[in-house]
Amino acid sequence: MMNTKLNGLFCPESVAVIGASNSFDKLGYHVMKSLVEGRYAGRIFPVNPRGGEIWGLSSHASLGAIPEPVDLAVIAVPAKFVPETLHECGKKRVKGVVMITAGFREIEDSKGEALQEEIGRIARTYDLPVIGPNTFGFVNLTFGVNASFTPEFSRLNKGGIALVSQSGGFCHLCGFLAMDQRMGMSKLMSLGNRLNVGFPELLHHLVEEDEATRVITLYIEGLDDPRELLDAAKALRGRKHIIAYKSGKSEKGDSASRFHTGSLAGDYQIWQGALRQAGMLEVVSAEQMIDVAKALDVCAPLKGPRIAVLSGQAGPGLIAADSVEKAGLQLARFSQKTQEIINRILPPIAIRSNPVDMGPAWYDAKSSLEILQAALEDEGTDGVIFIAMFASANVGLAKSLAEHLRTAPAFNKPVVGVFTAPRGVWDKEIAQMDGAGGISIVPTPERAGALMGDLFRANRLVNRV
Amino acid sequence: MMNTKLNGLFCPESVAVIGASNSFDKLGYHVMKSLVEGRYAGRIFPVNPRGGEIWGLSSHASLGAIPEPVDLAVIAVPAKFVPETLHECGKKRVKGVVMITAGFREIEDSKGEALQEEIGRIARTYDLPVIGPNTFGFVNLTFGVNASFTPEFSRLNKGGIALVSQSGGFCHLCGFLAMDQRMGMSKLMSLGNRLNVGFPELLHHLVEEDEATRVITLYIEGLDDPRELLDAAKALRGRKHIIAYKSGKSEKGDSASRFHTGSLAGDYQIWQGALRQAGMLEVVSAEQMIDVAKALDVCAPLKGPRIAVLSGQAGPGLIAADSVEKAGLQLARFSQKTQEIINRILPPIAIRSNPVDMGPAWYDAKSSLEILQAALEDEGTDGVIFIAMFASANVGLAKSLAEHLRTAPAFNKPVVGVFTAPRGVWDKEIAQMDGAGGISIVPTPERAGALMGDLFRANRLVNRV
Repeated sequence: MMNTKLNGLFCPESVAVIGASNSFDKLGYHVMKSLVEGRYAGRIFPVNPRGGEIWGLSSHASLGAIPEPVDLAVIAVPAKFVPETLHECGKKRVKGVVMITAGFREIEDSKGEALQEEIGRIARTYDLPVIGPNTFGFVNLTFGVNASFTPEFSRLNKGGIALVSQSGGFCHLCGFLAMDQRMGMSKLMSLGNRLNVGFPELLHHLVEEDEATRVITLYIEGLDDPRELLDAAKALRGRKHIIAYKSGKSEKGDSASRFHTGSLAGDYQIWQGALRQAGMLEVVSAEQMIDVAKALDVCAPLKGPRIAVLSGQAGPGLIAADSVEKAGLQLARFSQKTQEIINRILPPIAIRSNPVDMGPAWYDAKSSLEILQAALEDEGTDGVIFIAMFASANVGLAKSLAEHLRTAPAFNKPVVGVFTAPRGVWDKEIAQMDGAGGISIVPTPERAGALMGDLFRANRLVNRV
Repeated sequence: MMNTKLNGLFCPESVAVIGASNSFDKLGYHVMKSLVEGRYAGRIFPVNPRGGEIWGLSSHASLGAIPEPVDLAVIAVPAKFVPETLHECGKKRVKGVVMITAGFREIEDSKGEALQEEIGRIARTYDLPVIGPNTFGFVNLTFGVNASFTPEFSRLNKGGIALVSQSGGFCHLCGFLAMDQRMGMSKLMSLGNRLNVGFPELLHHLVEEDEATRVITLYIEGLDDPRELLDAAKALRGRKHIIAYKSGKSEKGDSASRFHTGSLAGDYQIWQGALRQAGMLEVVSAEQMIDVAKALDVCAPLKGPRIAVLSGQAGPGLIAADSVEKAGLQLARFSQKTQEIINRILPPIAIRSNPVDMGPAWYDAKSSLEILQAALEDEGTDGVIFIAMFASANVGLAKSLAEHLRTAPAFNKPVVGVFTAPRGVWDKEIAQMDGAGGISIVPTPERAGALMGDLFRANRLVNRV
């Protein structure tokens, strides 16, 4: 376990890019772009034996030629040069390595396996933590360093969610969806072939050393020794939410997984039970992962199964009500007091029992919020789904809601919002509302109901109920 | 059955807006906006007893005062004025009515039920087809008329998909998702309380009279006589795809549905079986509805269960492979010829069996397309999922793919694409690719696999296999 050293790797005061380049075709170009355009505040040292300026910075012929200490070395040179480079890293006493280079254990050629064993021995010699090989790198949004070949990840919102993935492709899928859904992240990384830093080390680091991370998401294809991960999760249980996505479920997928990151996927059913027993919340899609991680980060916990659905339009409210029951939860029964408040605000042309059709209040943020407040204060309600579809006549609704929410105290129960509009119409308002006062926004009423089910499961898992 | 008259309603040469207004607070304002800003090519007659110009057009004191024929009357006046207005529509011999006004059968007050019966009698007297009451209206994108209170629907892409909904809110949800996913639509409408135009009439109209519509989507809450819909679907079976979304599944939802559009939802399990037996494809979310409708409109039919997964990154390919098997389909086994082509193009560092990791070809649209072509020509493959996540280094890929696809002949098997990127990066290219050559794009690999399952079910349902 190397977790005590991971802070140096993830929060480096200086970064050397070995294989830095001005040529678009080289990954070292894109890593330099990530650091420079991502406004990394530490020192950046491009390393390239050809010399000259790279991305406007003087390059160094080798790591050893850099006259200052280097905390993080990003390696993006061909595989055959990696052993020598790793020796240099050890001699330079870097605190950690990101090894982007591929062509090790994951390739068909047995030379890859041998090369990975060799670099494993070198890393052990110097006690060097290595992310990779065969990784796109990592982004630490909290610290402000993008040590990856994808500069666009610097655009992610800062927040409490860390993603640790066995696949770089999944990080890209999830990272872009996260941008679209305004999810705030702390760290994002792919572990690649996991030379000596794997899921257990990351779990310890994220739970014990990383205060900014409140929710941990894992994408797992297959592991040689799943017990290490499960034991780590069990040992840390109850401290932070851990969400796990297991792929390689099918026989064919299993064989693909083995080739991809060099390990067997194992039996999916066994995985499901084991994840649950270790207190991890299993999800089955990237969209579900994002919905639940985001809500766990910003909402109050869902402590019971009774959900109120308040919708500006009856149809989407009905759909949300269906999805609440499909998720195994119940529609709350309002107290007399709550019902009286709703009846006072809404005329009898509306459906005033749960799911509430707030139609007549849909132009009026104040009335909508009064109903929301009444539903939240009802002792028979554990969480609320709050829906409004855009229409030309209610265009001002989102702005008023956003203004009210900006200064409102945080809700004491989870509120999941659905505000659907043509792109460009409510984008700014939705971005302002998302997270404000503990409301988390999803794209559809079906996902709102499913999310409530996940929030309820997550609360039970983390509290060992 | 009034279906023979619906073309006049949906393709009007002139439209009168009764209750037209310059005041933002009135729905008649937004209907005028839809017609004017939606560049409706026919004549528009605002009707308002106050007189003056409305949206730049001279208004008329009553429908009868309009000196020319009127094909469509849009009614947006308070409920108490509707009987009189409907008499005027009959005398004016309009071809159809859109009744936006609410406050009839759907309200708690029994006066609403009585008023609906009254207007039903009036409509029968004049043999007037009425969409509504309690509707947001309709949009006919093929003909270029937006007769709704939501001007933004004029932005929808034209295409082959019609949506007939029992809820206006669902039309807004689905319409905005459709814009986001570049789905091409022919017609979009909510039926509201279905005074005399319901699902059976619409099915006949869309199958028999509307050539632009290739796929019909229905959103159903509850019907007094579901058999009429089921019989219509059975009678028309095999001519166009019909996709149905049934809400009001739960007990509570059922009661909400009864209030919302005035009918009982019925037992969901019975519905499921009945929809299938009538040849309709059941979907359970708005996102699923959009994914499958769009693909049925643009892709070749999926005639068998054997799917090839070609992915620029191994992880998302693995996820798609899982989702294919979860959907009840199989991963295709490549012929020797196909495998040789793949092995020639990809070096041994990639996974070259299905799911194929096209990693080394991900900068290279030509190689990717060669592999796609080989997979499509393989007799053991019935459909292909084609995936590429954006990375800084492959930014040019989507542009090259779009250029190749622009002039390529249509694929003879369905191709489902997943091209995920930060917003703004590949938007234009994804829009160009979506639909080109028979490729349909979805946001995630999970949805690609699930979609293939739906395409297979749809093909069997429409062909009574």
